[in-house]
Parts: sequence; structure tokens; C-alpha cells
Amino acid sequence: MIGDSTIKEADVDTNRISRRRVLAAGAAGLVGAAAAPAAQPQDPTRVQGPPGRDVGARSPFEKPVRTAFSPARTATFTPLQDLDGIITPADLHFERHHAGVPAIDPQQYSLLVHGMVDRPTVFTLTDLKRFPGTSMIRFIECSGNGGRAYRLTTPTADLTPQQTDGLTSTSEWTGVRLATLLREVGASPKARWLLAEGMDAAVMTRSVPMSIATDDALVAYGQNGEALRPEQGYPVRLMLPGVEGNASVKWLRRIEVADQPFMTREETSKYTDPLPDGTARMFSLVMDAKSIITEPAFPDRLDGHGWREIRGLAWSGRGRITRVEVSVDGGRQWRDAHLDEPVLSKCHTRFRLPWEWTGQEAVLMSRATDETGYVQPTTAELLKVRGPNTQYHFNNIREWLVAADGVVRLKGGGA
Amino acid sequence: MIGDSTIKEADVDTNRISRRRVLAAGAAGLVGAAAAPAAQPQDPTRVQGPPGRDVGARSPFEKPVRTAFSPARTATFTPLQDLDGIITPADLHFERHHAGVPAIDPQQYSLLVHGMVDRPTVFTLTDLKRFPGTSMIRFIECSGNGGRAYRLTTPTADLTPQQTDGLTSTSEWTGVRLATLLREVGASPKARWLLAEGMDAAVMTRSVPMSIATDDALVAYGQNGEALRPEQGYPVRLMLPGVEGNASVKWLRRIEVADQPFMTREETSKYTDPLPDGTARMFSLVMDAKSIITEPAFPDRLDGHGWREIRGLAWSGRGRITRVEVSVDGGRQWRDAHLDEPVLSKCHTRFRLPWEWTGQEAVLMSRATDETGYVQPTTAELLKVRGPNTQYHFNNIREWLVAADGVVRLKGGGA
Repeated sequence: MIGDSTIKEADVDTNRISRRRVLAAGAAGLVGAAAAPAAQPQDPTRVQGPPGRDVGARSPFEKPVRTAFSPARTATFTPLQDLDGIITPADLHFERHHAGVPAIDPQQYSLLVHGMVDRPTVFTLTDLKRFPGTSMIRFIECSGNGGRAYRLTTPTADLTPQQTDGLTSTSEWTGVRLATLLREVGASPKARWLLAEGMDAAVMTRSVPMSIATDDALVAYGQNGEALRPEQGYPVRLMLPGVEGNASVKWLRRIEVADQPFMTREETSKYTDPLPDGTARMFSLVMDAKSIITEPAFPDRLDGHGWREIRGLAWSGRGRITRVEVSVDGGRQWRDAHLDEPVLSKCHTRFRLPWEWTGQEAVLMSRATDETGYVQPTTAELLKVRGPNTQYHFNNIREWLVAADGVVRLKGGGA
Repeated sequence: MIGDSTIKEADVDTNRISRRRVLAAGAAGLVGAAAAPAAQPQDPTRVQGPPGRDVGARSPFEKPVRTAFSPARTATFTPLQDLDGIITPADLHFERHHAGVPAIDPQQYSLLVHGMVDRPTVFTLTDLKRFPGTSMIRFIECSGNGGRAYRLTTPTADLTPQQTDGLTSTSEWTGVRLATLLREVGASPKARWLLAEGMDAAVMTRSVPMSIATDDALVAYGQNGEALRPEQGYPVRLMLPGVEGNASVKWLRRIEVADQPFMTREETSKYTDPLPDGTARMFSLVMDAKSIITEPAFPDRLDGHGWREIRGLAWSGRGRITRVEVSVDGGRQWRDAHLDEPVLSKCHTRFRLPWEWTGQEAVLMSRATDETGYVQPTTAELLKVRGPNTQYHFNNIREWLVAADGVVRLKGGGA
């Protein structure tokens, strides 16, 4: 997770709010002339366009960017309010690292699997790609995602979906099932845990229960069709669908099979979560069902009364989303939103609901339910169970206050 | 489609075969030193990596590129052999244009819908985005894709999947249903066709039957979560799932509703297909079921006997793929391949089958079946129906010849 304690309102670099969004918010007359990124011919049908390119690029009119909140830039956030659908472009997938992004030559890469196994083995990247593979479209969410919204005590805040919850992204991941590799090396039937270790300068290490490792876990080398991006673990990462992001160890170099957890620095000093009764929870790995409205949201300003579509994302680490309800009156009445197909397990799901704004103050909320029957809690409900000092898993309902002048702001009232 | 008549073997620029693929083919010792794209620190765990970035980039060790076959570069092909899964990264989505890629300012963009409608209307981009939207993961294939393989009369050819069939790609498309816009303008119940017109210098125009327009057609502004890429029609294109690519008119500026087709240049001089009996077929819009093995394929050279995975893509313009069979003996015996989830309608589907190569010559083939029961034909079967002069819809089975030395080449025997 990111160090929320180091994040202050003042750090929010509003220059990083994408220009596209500012234009869409209706300020075209103000900023259009100065910031015009490219000229359009008076009549494009009279001008032969440039030929095809080896690799494409965005329109100069589109500049979505990830944002960072700290000068060290140890985390950058996906611009959820600029995106639609469920796939996150690989170059906008959130990133989080504890010691920067290592440069790894795939020809030098290897993965050691050892410990309670019959045949300790070193796999090259070519070895890994020769095994039967699989692809799956799944989200990854940082365990600290949403902390800013959870702790927001002011009535409102000028925070975008990206700033509150941009540490979640969805990709199609390709790789070999970890279960296949564990069979290959002959993991002991007495094994209960394994250690995953990264080859970054933090030597990121996490313990993973064998129940997760032998379920749908991947040793992944592909993302959205191509090779992993460097900040996503190139050339190989662990991918534990539905589990807090840090456990899906990137730049994976070693897996050690054992009969107990390893109690690494990253699961004792961090990723252990204090509770109101003075105890703490450990290995709270699975991400509970959550949703967020991405449109309208700050910095949108509704430019007129009438019909528009409320859009957002919902996801659960425990399976498929079965229902998303939306309220426009602060939670008194709820209506079922439409879910775009495909609705996949442990994957972002796009929800939509038409809404007619009549110019009065409104409070927009979304509430996700997953296939286990779990319902996303309100902030008050989550506070009651987890207390004000909890550090991770902030899946409480987000609220957007639409003022009578059309300005949309995040509504506070948390810890 | 691309002008197949202008494509000659000599045009194939083998320098464009991605370096990654050459390395994977086992030539590391030969090209490694000269072409090393970046240095890896001796021990990445001893070096703090660079911080997060606004927008990511590929590892310098990965350089997938689209290829063009003509100096005019009016088409570039997706590197199918370098990709896994089903999503095509937006900057590697194949492109095909008749007069280059126009530069369009989204603030100046508008779409006129008129003709047999009650309320002729001009929609801005903001207008289009305000309508209820939807996202869907679907392929687009150029109607001319595969012509080179269909016409290959030599015993073998050094052609990659990209070179034979790289004019197909899959994205998540987002937009408003065309049916919604047609309801908004009050399209006449007597309307049977519409004209879609682009604002490129070719003023690309195609007639679309109302049955397709009111089914699952989109007026799309989003691709893989973000705005369309310029070469995919930025800011707005038509997207007709399952239909030959050219009819999904890009840079869409006008839709005219009518009671008959418009017989435009692009559907009389082109996209009309001669048949062996001297007649021709028109408006053969839907792409039939097809598949291609992407691995192993040229330029792979199998580096040793033993187990590996045969991987490929299958798709159909008529619905879901229900079965992909693979043969390793030139079509005598077939085995069902595994299909990765999700298997979506009118979408690439990834298939996989483990195969043990024992060092003998082998001929690898794949055969797709879709939910209508349609089975992908052999080259001989397609030739019989469509003749040697057919110009479009080349969904005959591809064959890869694996020689005893492990070299893999495309097998000929077509028109």
C-alpha cells in the first residue's frame, strides 16, 4: 500500500488532472486556445493523412496520466475517471513499488522453486513459456487503496476517483498456473505456505497460503496480450487473483515451499492491520466487494439539467459481482444498475444507470454485491468493525455530492 | 482490405520480425551482443530502480511492431506471433486506411444523422457520450485478411502469422448503440439501409443493412478503456461486430438512413467478390469462423524434442466459438483444444493444446467451429466454392510444416 500518512491534500497536483477531463467539464473556452495540442485541418477530407506506423500513439488531444502523491513516486494511480469499460491500458495500470522498478534482462532471468519439494528446480523464461498456459482477465488492487476517502473528515474534498481509488486496474494476464509448477517440482503434501520473493531492491517477500497458490494463481509473463510492463513485474510476476496486490510479488525470482508462513518484514511491520479492540488482523489477503462511481465525479461539473448516465466500476476478490445498486439521494432509495458483459470473476465490472438531474443537490452512491452474498458496507459500518486506525482494505461506499451549481465533490464523514 | 495484388514475397521486410521472436528462436548467441537493448545491473536487488511514471512504456527488451507490406503503408499488421491471450494492445491493433489517418479535434467533431428520419440531428462528441453506453470485447478483421496464404502455391513460405493473417485484432469497444441513436432521430420503419461516411480524405462510405445497424452495432468512442486511437477512427467510429472491417467506418461524420443500399465506390469497384461461375457476391459482410495457430509458427525453430504447447486464435463473426480442433499430422487425426475463458461472441478466443514433438516432420492445422455449427473449411474446400480469383474472406485452414530440423514454415497448396 502507499504510505497514506504521507499524503496530504496539499500534495494533490491538480495540474495532473488530464486536460481531456477539463475540456469535458466545459471549460473549453477558457483553456482551449492556450493549450491546443494539435491543429486540425479545416477540412480533413482534403488532406491525405500520414501513413501507418510500426507502433501507434494516442491522439495529441488525449493525455491520460497516472498520478503520484509523493515526491518519491513509489505509487502512481490509474485515471479511473478518464476510462470506460473494464480493461486498463497497460501503460496506465497503477504501479506500486518499494524500491523502484528494476531493469531485468529476460535472457538472464530465472525462477528458483525449492523448499519442501522433491525436485528443486531453476526455470528460465523459456521454460515457463513451454508449460501449458492460460489467460484470465482479473483486477489487481493495492491493499491501501481508498485510505484517503476512508479518512476524509471534511464535508467535501476535491478528489478524483483516481486520487481516492486509482490503485486498482484490470488486465488480461497470461502465464502458467502456479499449481502446474508445484506439481512439476513435487511439492510436499505437508506444505501449507510458500514464500514469494522479488528481485527488486526491496527484495519484496510475502507468504502465500497453499490454498491460494494451488487455486487460480498464475506465474504470469503476459499482460493485455503482450509481455508484462516493467512496473508490473517484467519479465515474470506472481498473480494471485482477488488478493491484495502486494502479495502478487513482481519480478519474481524465488518460491520457497514450507509448512508455515515466513513472517517477513512486509507482513509484520506492514500489511498487518490494527483493530479497535487492540488486536490486529494478519493475512487478510482477499479484497472484499467494492464499487465506485467514476462519472459524474470530481472534477466534473454538470453542464445542464437532463438525462445522463451514471457510470462506475465494481469488483470483488471473492468471485463475480452479481448486483450494483445506485442511489442518488444519499442512500434512501436504491436502483439496480445495468452490468456490461462480460461479468467475470475477480474482475472489474462496468455498471451504468441513466439519471435525470433536475438541478437539485444530490448524493450519488453505489453499492456492490458479490456472488457470496457479501454487500459493500457504508463508511459507518466499516468504521464500526475496523476502527479509525485500520490501514488496509477500504471498501466502504464512496459518496459524491452534486451541488445545485453542478459541481461534484467527494463527500466526507469518515474516520 | 489491402491490395493483395501489390503484395509480393520480396516486400516482406524480415528486419521487422521482432527481435524478441528471434531471441526466442534460439539465436541469442548470434544477435545478443550487437543488439542488446539495455543493460541489466549485475544484481538488481542492489540498485534502487527508477520511480513511477505518468505513462508507462515497454521494456527495452520487448519491441513488438506492426508491419506494412507496401511503401505507402496503407495497412499495418498485428504481430499475432508475439501476442498471447485475446486482447490486442491498442498501439498494435492492425490499421487499414484508404487515405492515411486524419487529424481530428474532438471539440470540432460532429456526427450528422439524417435521411429517412423524423428529426435530422447533429451530435457532438459530448452528446454521444451522454447517451446510455455499453462496452463489448469484439474482434475486427479486414475482409482481405489471409489472401497471401490462400494464394500460396509454393510448397512452403517464410511467412509469419502476422504476415498472413495480422489484419485481425481484438479490443474492448465502448460507445452508444447505433439503435439508440436511430430511435433518438426517429428512423422510419420503412428504412432498410444506411450509409456510413468517414471524414478521412477517402471519404470512406459503406452501406449497412438495418438488420445489422439495429442489432449490436456501436457508435464507438472508446477502445481498451481509453479513447479510440487515431488510426482506429478517433474520435468516433462505427463498430459492427462480426462484420468485415471496412464497413465499420472510422472517423464517422455522417449516417444517412434510406430504403436501399447506396452502391458506393467501395462496394462496387471493391468489396464485391468474383465467383467461379462468373457471377459475383456483394455485401458478403459477415466474417465466417476462422482460426490460426500462432505458436509454433514461422519464424520459430523448435529447439528440441519434447512437450510444448500449440497456441492460437479462433473467431467467428456469427457468434461464439464452440470448438477448435488441432491436427499435427496434416488433418488425419484431430484433437479438441482447450479454450481459455472468457469465450465471447464475435471475439478472438485463445486455444491451447499440449503436443510432444518427437523430431519427425509434422503438419500443424487448426479447425474452428462456431455456435451456428459452421466448420472452418480446408483450402481445397474454399477454392471449390469461391474459386482462385476471390478477393475477400479467406478463412481456409492454415497449415504449418514442421521439418525434422525443427524449422517451421507456412505450407502452401492454395490457388
